[in-house]
Amino acid sequence: MPPNHPVGKDLLSAANISLSDLNDVMRRSSIIKDLDGESSSPANARKIVASIFYQRSTRTKLGFETAALRLGHRTIDAYDPDRNRVGSANGDSFQDHIRTIAQLSDLIVFRHSDEEKCYEVARLSPVPVINGGNGSDEHPTQALIDLFCMLSMNGPVESQSLAISCDSRARYAYSLLLLLKHMPPKRLTFCVDPEMQFSPKTQLALDTLSGLGTHVSLVHDIEACLDHDVLNIQTQDLTSKVKSTLDGGDLASYEEKNPFVITAEKIQRANSNIIILNPLPRQGELDPSCDDLPNARYFEQVKLSVYVRMAVLERMLAGILWTGGNSQSVT
Amino acid sequence: MPPNHPVGKDLLSAANISLSDLNDVMRRSSIIKDLDGESSSPANARKIVASIFYQRSTRTKLGFETAALRLGHRTIDAYDPDRNRVGSANGDSFQDHIRTIAQLSDLIVFRHSDEEKCYEVARLSPVPVINGGNGSDEHPTQALIDLFCMLSMNGPVESQSLAISCDSRARYAYSLLLLLKHMPPKRLTFCVDPEMQFSPKTQLALDTLSGLGTHVSLVHDIEACLDHDVLNIQTQDLTSKVKSTLDGGDLASYEEKNPFVITAEKIQRANSNIIILNPLPRQGELDPSCDDLPNARYFEQVKLSVYVRMAVLERMLAGILWTGGNSQSVT
Amino acid sequence: MPPNHPVGKDLLSAANISLSDLNDVMRRSSIIKDLDGESSSPANARKIVASIFYQRSTRTKLGFETAALRLGHRTIDAYDPDRNRVGSANGDSFQDHIRTIAQLSDLIVFRHSDEEKCYEVARLSPVPVINGGNGSDEHPTQALIDLFCMLSMNGPVESQSLAISCDSRARYAYSLLLLLKHMPPKRLTFCVDPEMQFSPKTQLALDTLSGLGTHVSLVHDIEACLDHDVLNIQTQDLTSKVKSTLDGGDLASYEEKNPFVITAEKIQRANSNIIILNPLPRQGELDPSCDDLPNARYFEQVKLSVYVRMAVLERMLAGILWTGGNSQSVT
Repeated sequence: MPPNHPVGKDLLSAANISLSDLNDVMRRSSIIKDLDGESSSPANARKIVASIFYQRSTRTKLGFETAALRLGHRTIDAYDPDRNRVGSANGDSFQDHIRTIAQLSDLIVFRHSDEEKCYEVARLSPVPVINGGNGSDEHPTQALIDLFCMLSMNGPVESQSLAISCDSRARYAYSLLLLLKHMPPKRLTFCVDPEMQFSPKTQLALDTLSGLGTHVSLVHDIEACLDHDVLNIQTQDLTSKVKSTLDGGDLASYEEKNPFVITAEKIQRANSNIIILNPLPRQGELDPSCDDLPNARYFEQVKLSVYVRMAVLERMLAGILWTGGNSQSVT
Repeated sequence: MPPNHPVGKDLLSAANISLSDLNDVMRRSSIIKDLDGESSSPANARKIVASIFYQRSTRTKLGFETAALRLGHRTIDAYDPDRNRVGSANGDSFQDHIRTIAQLSDLIVFRHSDEEKCYEVARLSPVPVINGGNGSDEHPTQALIDLFCMLSMNGPVESQSLAISCDSRARYAYSLLLLLKHMPPKRLTFCVDPEMQFSPKTQLALDTLSGLGTHVSLVHDIEACLDHDVLNIQTQDLTSKVKSTLDGGDLASYEEKNPFVITAEKIQRANSNIIILNPLPRQGELDPSCDDLPNARYFEQVKLSVYVRMAVLERMLAGILWTGGNSQSVT
Repeated sequence: MPPNHPVGKDLLSAANISLSDLNDVMRRSSIIKDLDGESSSPANARKIVASIFYQRSTRTKLGFETAALRLGHRTIDAYDPDRNRVGSANGDSFQDHIRTIAQLSDLIVFRHSDEEKCYEVARLSPVPVINGGNGSDEHPTQALIDLFCMLSMNGPVESQSLAISCDSRARYAYSLLLLLKHMPPKRLTFCVDPEMQFSPKTQLALDTLSGLGTHVSLVHDIEACLDHDVLNIQTQDLTSKVKSTLDGGDLASYEEKNPFVITAEKIQRANSNIIILNPLPRQGELDPSCDDLPNARYFEQVKLSVYVRMAVLERMLAGILWTGGNSQSVT
């Protein structure tokens, strides 16, 4: 990183977030929540938040834009292949485009399928960069949102039992595991396909949590988690073994039989009070029959996400650095 | 509608607008007009107005965005099939997308070719919804704009004679007929193709106006309306009968011979002072030769439309409900 | 121009800019630069700046949007062929679209490949219009930016030697020549392909500068300019003669041998302190090896461009007219 870039200007990985950073974000989010999305920042701050999303996004892109606007700032969409010259035959290179946007704006939110690209952007840009999802690596603000939901819906994380059901490559889940070391839950249960292999970095994060006293375990059926306080669920790719057990059944019972699908019937059968979170969009893992249950908190999660993104922007636009340490690249 | 949604939060039909609501909108529009588009709302209100337009729009979409921005609020474009995940293979369902946007924003402006969709959006969304055009059903804010133009250009509607020339399925015209019951004009003349059939609901609205004392009549040639105070014109589909009378003529005289086209020559021949309004875009019913006449008020109408949309947003973002009664669906 | 449009409302050509206008823009830009992009305009001014770009743009479009937002104003993108009705089968004509946007907004920034279109827009629009590039004719705000860079990086223009290396049809260069008559540099060297012909209007502008005391000369190799204070470089189309001298060489030495490409090696060999400006995007004329040299000022130029665009918008939205004289069309 060039010497004129202060260490900690960017939020690229959950590893950038120290315990005191995390407490600061949670505190700010909570204050903003109490004000129902109002912020105390001056109306004429007029900072420019640029979004550059090479992958589709609804909640992250519009959520950051909404957060910036509610803070009194402004936004520009700096990725538009039909209108900008980047990517056109006689247009800017990727590097020149980033350098240009970094001159026009005060902060960049960036998403790309290539895990390394956000690190390159952070090196090119003198202004702070937020990783809004880099391939299957990380999504640190989603992890902050999930943690804030646990806190504000259910109190201290340390006294909660958390079940996570998702693909082992889910970027939000890895970022969440990294954050949980600052607030280790009482119990953490991963609900995964039995043939699934954790990546070394995920296994390391789980081992760290174990070392901090969290009871970590694996299950292979969502119904084995319904006694937990919180379920954080996303779709997962099924292996041939699981698929074969679902074959031959009629479609109507598919959701009931699929061990990684949550339905109202399963919740009611277990008489469960579990809080259901989901980063959305859902693919089928979260049956619409759940939507009317008090367990369903995933749209409330969208509302809280704006407060967390406001807190993150408020910090970073004020020049407050992340003190968790720098990660210059994925590998 | 779910019990937690207050009755009257949405503007889906002109039927939602009571006389006192209408008077309030006209009064607010007039104040804003006198201030030349300035508004007295505090600069740091920072509400988020989301637009979701499944059909193309220039005036309604940019007009609402402009109105929100002039009020000191912010806008997000929440329909972008190339950038959002809604509609993509692994994206949100329509319902989840609406639920998400309703968590991010404070008000939704919605347009769809399906007449029922705006009612579904209103049921899904805890925040107010404005129908910006639903198929061939209604366009209530266009009707408010037309009424405000009549009022501010020509005084009380009750003393005016109004000619409407448009397709019988024109959504703005039906919404306007519904509003006119609160301010019945002296005279209402429909200029239509002789083979055209009114829908039962349009016929009912015309009968209502008759019952209120408006002299309602039909004509089949625009030149028969030129003694009126106001002409509200849009294109209409011609039946075979009318088309055949235009056949064989040369193209140059087509506009002059077409009984549903207004031209400068027709206006000047009649020595008419009629005020011409048009919701735009025009298709050929409004000859550009009219543009330089003092009768042409359709671009001034665009300017006034911003004031009316500001008035509507001001009301709804302040939580003021529509008291005209609820219409839960088209059918 | 219709009589109700004040003379001087638009910035279409550098010829519209008088010496006192130019001094005013430079003064305002300088004040804004000293405030690091803050502006003293009231936060609730809430003017609407519409951008209508028929050609792709990164810096001009996002730069004007950023400038408007930093001034506390708002922006709408009024050219979106996928969403607006202009250009659709039953949509607005170009003329009606401009008339509509001119009712919704307070200022229009316009780019089109057709050189005459911005003049048509200015005639149709009661609100001020800025030419953001019209074909190969002009780009007046880019010229203002280049001049502000020379002033703020290197002091009075009159004491500087300026080299320009670009295609003879470069629109920014012609606009810059027009402005330089107000601040004639000590020396102006054009680095061009020897077969290149200047257009009569460019030749006239050069003759004007000669008459004002500038030493004007032509060279055919960038290395002949490296003793100048400032190099303003853009790509140029090579004629067959130049191309043939480059043929047969290996690709690696192409940049070194091409006489219109600037490289770090050429600069270091000449031990040159020349300031390098480039309107961007670059095509190959500006080798990335230059980026780390102190000579490279083209990304700083992007930052300064926002201040100049803020100054231009501040003036025009306050109703201050251009007094350099009117140019109603290109021809």
